[in-house]
Amino acid sequence: MSVLIVGSTALDSIKTPKSENPRLLGGSASHAAVAASFFSPVQLIGVVGKDFPRRYVQLYQRHGIDLDGLQILPGKTFHWSGEYEANMNNRRTLLTELGVFETFTPTLPPSHQKTPFVLLANIAPALQHHVLNQMQRPKFIAADTMDLWLNIALPDLLKLIKRLDLFVLNDSEAHQLTKEDNMFTALRKIHKLGPKHVIIKKGSHGSILSGPRGFFICPAYPLHKVVDPTGAGDSFVGAIIGHLASSRGAVDDNMRRAMIYGSVVASFCCEGFGLMRTTRVKRAQIEKRVKELERLTKF
Amino acid sequence: MSVLIVGSTALDSIKTPKSENPRLLGGSASHAAVAASFFSPVQLIGVVGKDFPRRYVQLYQRHGIDLDGLQILPGKTFHWSGEYEANMNNRRTLLTELGVFETFTPTLPPSHQKTPFVLLANIAPALQHHVLNQMQRPKFIAADTMDLWLNIALPDLLKLIKRLDLFVLNDSEAHQLTKEDNMFTALRKIHKLGPKHVIIKKGSHGSILSGPRGFFICPAYPLHKVVDPTGAGDSFVGAIIGHLASSRGAVDDNMRRAMIYGSVVASFCCEGFGLMRTTRVKRAQIEKRVKELERLTKF
Repeated sequence: MSVLIVGSTALDSIKTPKSENPRLLGGSASHAAVAASFFSPVQLIGVVGKDFPRRYVQLYQRHGIDLDGLQILPGKTFHWSGEYEANMNNRRTLLTELGVFETFTPTLPPSHQKTPFVLLANIAPALQHHVLNQMQRPKFIAADTMDLWLNIALPDLLKLIKRLDLFVLNDSEAHQLTKEDNMFTALRKIHKLGPKHVIIKKGSHGSILSGPRGFFICPAYPLHKVVDPTGAGDSFVGAIIGHLASSRGAVDDNMRRAMIYGSVVASFCCEGFGLMRTTRVKRAQIEKRVKELERLTKF
Repeated sequence: MSVLIVGSTALDSIKTPKSENPRLLGGSASHAAVAASFFSPVQLIGVVGKDFPRRYVQLYQRHGIDLDGLQILPGKTFHWSGEYEANMNNRRTLLTELGVFETFTPTLPPSHQKTPFVLLANIAPALQHHVLNQMQRPKFIAADTMDLWLNIALPDLLKLIKRLDLFVLNDSEAHQLTKEDNMFTALRKIHKLGPKHVIIKKGSHGSILSGPRGFFICPAYPLHKVVDPTGAGDSFVGAIIGHLASSRGAVDDNMRRAMIYGSVVASFCCEGFGLMRTTRVKRAQIEKRVKELERLTKF
């Protein structure tokens, strides 16, 4: 089945202690869409400016991503610039230029309004609502977020969470939202806000799911070297929704395996700047790492 | 088979935001010995003062721990006092009174010199050497350590690591020892120091093993409430050595399962102050949590 993904489509300038990479293809929707495309047909909803490089449009196309919902408007593409510390965990934002994103109001093409799987990737909750309001009874709705929206748009976000089947956030966001240090207690509290499935991402420590089939402790794929973690969380959730949409049977039964695929695609994302490594991955390489994760966790 | 365990035997006064507990039974050897005793006969090597409460001797005895190697000397028992922050991860030492520990020089009873499994629980590396020097060709030698010895006794510690089959340390110690942020790269570097098996403990994020059968990503047992994490790492490694000593077949093949038992016993340790919860655990409760960990990680 198809997946509709809305989120940011951006140019990312990323500095690490070892290198500097200007104007990479980035944004939550770009990472999530490419990740999902390994498993299912993807419809992308986003906006870019006239400066958006043609090669990035071609990159989306190579992944078979439907671009009917991608607006190209006069003005500049959303540009984010950030710098990572040596440990590759802490980063600081150097610059945020919203560009055409400032007035982005997506209107879904009629062909997109009945897509069964929806991922509201990280973007303002008001926009996530706006897209969801145009959908006709999707089978499964997932959303990701970031600390910024917890700080400046919490009422909107809480309203959104109520409408979700799956809510994904990281450990520090879960702490911020629930005031809980214990992540299993935090999961319980987040369920009470609405979603049946909640996933807390813990970076290199993996992730935890709480859902109708109980908890699942999902490992991160072990990497000896992280080149650039930008977009790893978006890739994780993109691969999850893509894999769910491609699987037969009940979503509740498929969630754990989807998360394993999410961990694997996120690991590839971390091995290159922006989408450089992810776009070159072959399905067989993904399957190989999934098998490895099986071996790495079996006892 | 039997396990010989040397380490600290102490009285711990532990403060948390919710409660204060003076003079609990503590020390690395106490936690490790009780944890190991669920699986194998244990010989304890340690020293306490005349003030050591009789009820704590009885507690060891209830766990069938052989106390022929426990010296009771004139003077005071080693006393440690610490305080935990609200998140139960950060703690600071309020007081350390070495007492009879200051001049502790264990002499192993002849009956203990041929014990096949040895755990050198956290204690000065010189003492770990001293005990090991009295052993006759043990089958398997494991050791744990702490940041203090990395700071003040690194040459001794490095000499010890060479002699080990299994070295266990936590993530911040692994970083301190190797200067590596990436734990998988750190594991590789630690192998080069000697041990065939290396385990890095990551608290509530579980642990990772690197050994002859490759990596193993070991989950922590999910706890909704941590009462007191003191001794959890010692319980983890104690249960590992105890379980290894009780298992048939090659240690290399048994290590993963032993770690799972380690995670489970450590989880009980965290549910009470000092050894309060651990000493009341029944083997069936341990098996139940092991089965749960199987369910929590299966995909």
